Amino acid sequence: MTRPDTDHRPPPSVAGEPLAIIAAGDAVPFEVATAAAALGRRLMVIGLEGVADERLKAFPFEALKWGQFGRLEHLLAAHGTRDIVLIGAVDRRPDFSAIGLDFGTLKYLPRLIKAMAGGDDSVLSSLVKALEELGYRVVGAHEVAPTLVAAAGLVAGPAPNKSDREDAALALAAARAIGALDIGQGAVAVGGRVVALEAAEGTDAMLERVVALRDSGRVRWKGRAGALAKRSKPQQDIRVDMPAIGPNTVERVARAGLAGIAIEPGRVLIAERAETLRRATESGTFIYAVADEAAPGGA
Amino acid sequence: MTRPDTDHRPPPSVAGEPLAIIAAGDAVPFEVATAAAALGRRLMVIGLEGVADERLKAFPFEALKWGQFGRLEHLLAAHGTRDIVLIGAVDRRPDFSAIGLDFGTLKYLPRLIKAMAGGDDSVLSSLVKALEELGYRVVGAHEVAPTLVAAAGLVAGPAPNKSDREDAALALAAARAIGALDIGQGAVAVGGRVVALEAAEGTDAMLERVVALRDSGRVRWKGRAGALAKRSKPQQDIRVDMPAIGPNTVERVARAGLAGIAIEPGRVLIAERAETLRRATESGTFIYAVADEAAPGGA
Repeated sequence: MTRPDTDHRPPPSVAGEPLAIIAAGDAVPFEVATAAAALGRRLMVIGLEGVADERLKAFPFEALKWGQFGRLEHLLAAHGTRDIVLIGAVDRRPDFSAIGLDFGTLKYLPRLIKAMAGGDDSVLSSLVKALEELGYRVVGAHEVAPTLVAAAGLVAGPAPNKSDREDAALALAAARAIGALDIGQGAVAVGGRVVALEAAEGTDAMLERVVALRDSGRVRWKGRAGALAKRSKPQQDIRVDMPAIGPNTVERVARAGLAGIAIEPGRVLIAERAETLRRATESGTFIYAVADEAAPGGA
Repeated sequence: MTRPDTDHRPPPSVAGEPLAIIAAGDAVPFEVATAAAALGRRLMVIGLEGVADERLKAFPFEALKWGQFGRLEHLLAAHGTRDIVLIGAVDRRPDFSAIGLDFGTLKYLPRLIKAMAGGDDSVLSSLVKALEELGYRVVGAHEVAPTLVAAAGLVAGPAPNKSDREDAALALAAARAIGALDIGQGAVAVGGRVVALEAAEGTDAMLERVVALRDSGRVRWKGRAGALAKRSKPQQDIRVDMPAIGPNTVERVARAGLAGIAIEPGRVLIAERAETLRRATESGTFIYAVADEAAPGGA
């Protein structure tokens, strides 16, 4: 999704103000809700049925099926919110059999069907557009829960050495190039060479490949070296689609023999932050947030 | 290896003129020798011991160990050649234990050791430089055997439809972008989306990944669709490092459910051409050579 010029506005985190969190899968919505509540936002969580984290029920919670746009409109109006966060993993296109179409959805149906044909990004951007047309403001998780992203500098683990920093810069540049083509958000560089680029397979599969490359002797290095880079695509709307790392990323990076992880400051979500940082420290894996000159959120 | 401005010179294929082919692994050196001999070149094949194709012994043949640079100099001088082709797969860095160092090599040793530390490309470019300093002309296989590459247009198989041509263009553009960063030469696009990019794993492993992406439902399409693109890196010295496709590539592309293969005209070698084209026709897989505006060898 494209949203070129709105990433620099101040975070709308105003204590007491209502906020609706529309939550899909994984643990991140719970962390966002917790952080936003800690900042004093008056929450309503609208959880996608069957995928939303059960822990979200600790907050004022409503369940929603895919396709219940009418009910969504009703819930949002009842909460009196203007700000909405859309967060959580939507791995696949919605399962049509689980869609509970309601009357409010019917008017959006032609657009939705078109959007689904274009993939997840289009479904999300259609949803954002529809919400904005209704007067809502869709904000990023990092805007209501700024503790979930990283400031520039070493986040955890040992400081990367010169060679690792060079690999980090190289991998970030490669990730930027493929991001500009809307292909992926990740790359791995070791010893001055980019050895893996992420496309549809995702970061985990790319890291498994790095293990295989090393096992087969196709790429060789001693000890721990190199970096995984994760960053947003330059044109990406990180309000609804934010790159993320988590404990699992650290585990896989360590297992691949990489020295650490380089992320873009402010625009990459650190899921399960405490656990992620703990594993980074324990496994001696750096997490290093580094801005590059050309990055929209950088410098 | 970089050699920006010399790809447009006329092919030096002069009947009766001597030509030395320094052959590493795989079947391609034999095809180059056969094609060059058919054009009337007076051949000497210098085969890397243990890896050169046995069939090359049908031509005037000398065996050479890695590191026998003195012997190489002697053989080249004896053949009275000016033109040299370096061809065949050099998958790994040379096994030092199999290197038969001779006196002629000793003077190049410091340079060679430095080159080996930088990977295969550097070893080759050092060899090219050393040969050029001795007054030899290193030419590309496509220059002495132009039948091994493709002219623009459909090479084999069914004509790609509009959607496949769009995927071909998209994959070629992605391959160009990662090639410009010196990362890889291949990409796969399906249904308007780049789903895989090649780095250190190589084309075969990337195509296996496409199979896995489809099997897992991460990427979905019906029947045969999309394209593998293979092209040279913009700055690549294709005299000594030419992208190639072969029968195995066609098999894997068909197995991945892709509609075909898009290659850069004039700069991608079609290994075992008759067999490759036969399999393309039989499996209904297009091989399509398409120039893009920005490509050095294109238009």
